Amino acid sequence: MPYVNIRLGGTLTREQKRKIAEEITDTLERIAHKPKSYTYIAFDELPHEQWAIGGKLLDDDE
Amino acid sequence: MPYVNIRLGGTLTREQKRKIAEEITDTLERIAHKPKSYTYIAFDELPHEQWAIGGKLLDDDE
Amino acid sequence: MPYVNIRLGGTLTREQKRKIAEEITDTLERIAHKPKSYTYIAFDELPHEQWAIGGKLLDDDE
Amino acid sequence: MPYVNIRLGGTLTREQKRKIAEEITDTLERIAHKPKSYTYIAFDELPHEQWAIGGKLLDDDE
Amino acid sequence: MPYVNIRLGGTLTREQKRKIAEEITDTLERIAHKPKSYTYIAFDELPHEQWAIGGKLLDDDE
Amino acid sequence: MPYVNIRLGGTLTREQKRKIAEEITDTLERIAHKPKSYTYIAFDELPHEQWAIGGKLLDDDE
Repeated sequence: MPYVNIRLGGTLTREQKRKIAEEITDTLERIAHKPKSYTYIAFDELPHEQWAIGGKLLDDDE
Repeated sequence: MPYVNIRLGGTLTREQKRKIAEEITDTLERIAHKPKSYTYIAFDELPHEQWAIGGKLLDDDE
Repeated sequence: MPYVNIRLGGTLTREQKRKIAEEITDTLERIAHKPKSYTYIAFDELPHEQWAIGGKLLDDDE
Repeated sequence: MPYVNIRLGGTLTREQKRKIAEEITDTLERIAHKPKSYTYIAFDELPHEQWAIGGKLLDDDE
Repeated sequence: MPYVNIRLGGTLTREQKRKIAEEITDTLERIAHKPKSYTYIAFDELPHEQWAIGGKLLDDDE
Repeated sequence: MPYVNIRLGGTLTREQKRKIAEEITDTLERIAHKPKSYTYIAFDELPHEQWAIGGKLLDDDE
């Protein structure tokens, strides 16, 4: 641990995921003193049709 | 918040997801007094091969 | 399945959880045709200090 | 990875959690070829009031 | 319940998932006394690009 | 969305959670272009007895 799960609608590029993983792992090391090698991050990129906010699917807003 | 995660085997149509999101968001507003705009819902539609009940994959029952 | 996880800040009364569970299970039966006995619901009631929205802990707004 | 999350109603003794963690980690090594040191397991022991099956809270059956 | 979520990078064969589900369900019956029919297991097989360990995506190691 | 779930063994101070939430929300805005107000973060601070790595509970190492 820590285990971090990032769930969002749509997709990220590999470069975005790489940078986000790097920064969050760094944040947890600096602030929570968790060694970098312990941090697992899993990204779930969900289609807009699988997310709802305020009772509406994300792609009904599109 | 609230964040609601609905995980099931198989798929739902967009219309089913739309209606479920609408009703659950309404339920949380009426009963838990959570403003509609705060409720996030994420649907995970897993292939039957990725779910097991009673130690058997769902599609071993098919 | 389905497995539904409801995560929110603060607590619900037993009566609120009972009513929410009843309604969501009913919604999944009517709309997604999932037999009631199959639906599992887990409530996670997190202290406000464990939720952040917009980069601020919920109880920093209080 | 793997990351395994076990969620159940009620509590387990430390000895039960120890044994379950041992066996599941072993299962994932033997069958999925995941080195033991990679497997993270998190147990969530929820009060019966926070679980519903078939639309009823677990402790309404008690 | 219990609800068990197994998340890993890469894929498993159907046979691996079948065997893992069988063993974990058996473990929870023997050690935690949970009837087999109550145990739900959901497998999430994530592409290597969606997992990071130590701040690096899994497929940056490949 | 995004919804971020940070799960770790042990506890964080309120100040640590505040700082982590701030940084992660900022990371997701800068890199993934998610407006700050959309990001939900939930922290799960688990007792060491509820986490296992390599088949051993964390507090068996203590």
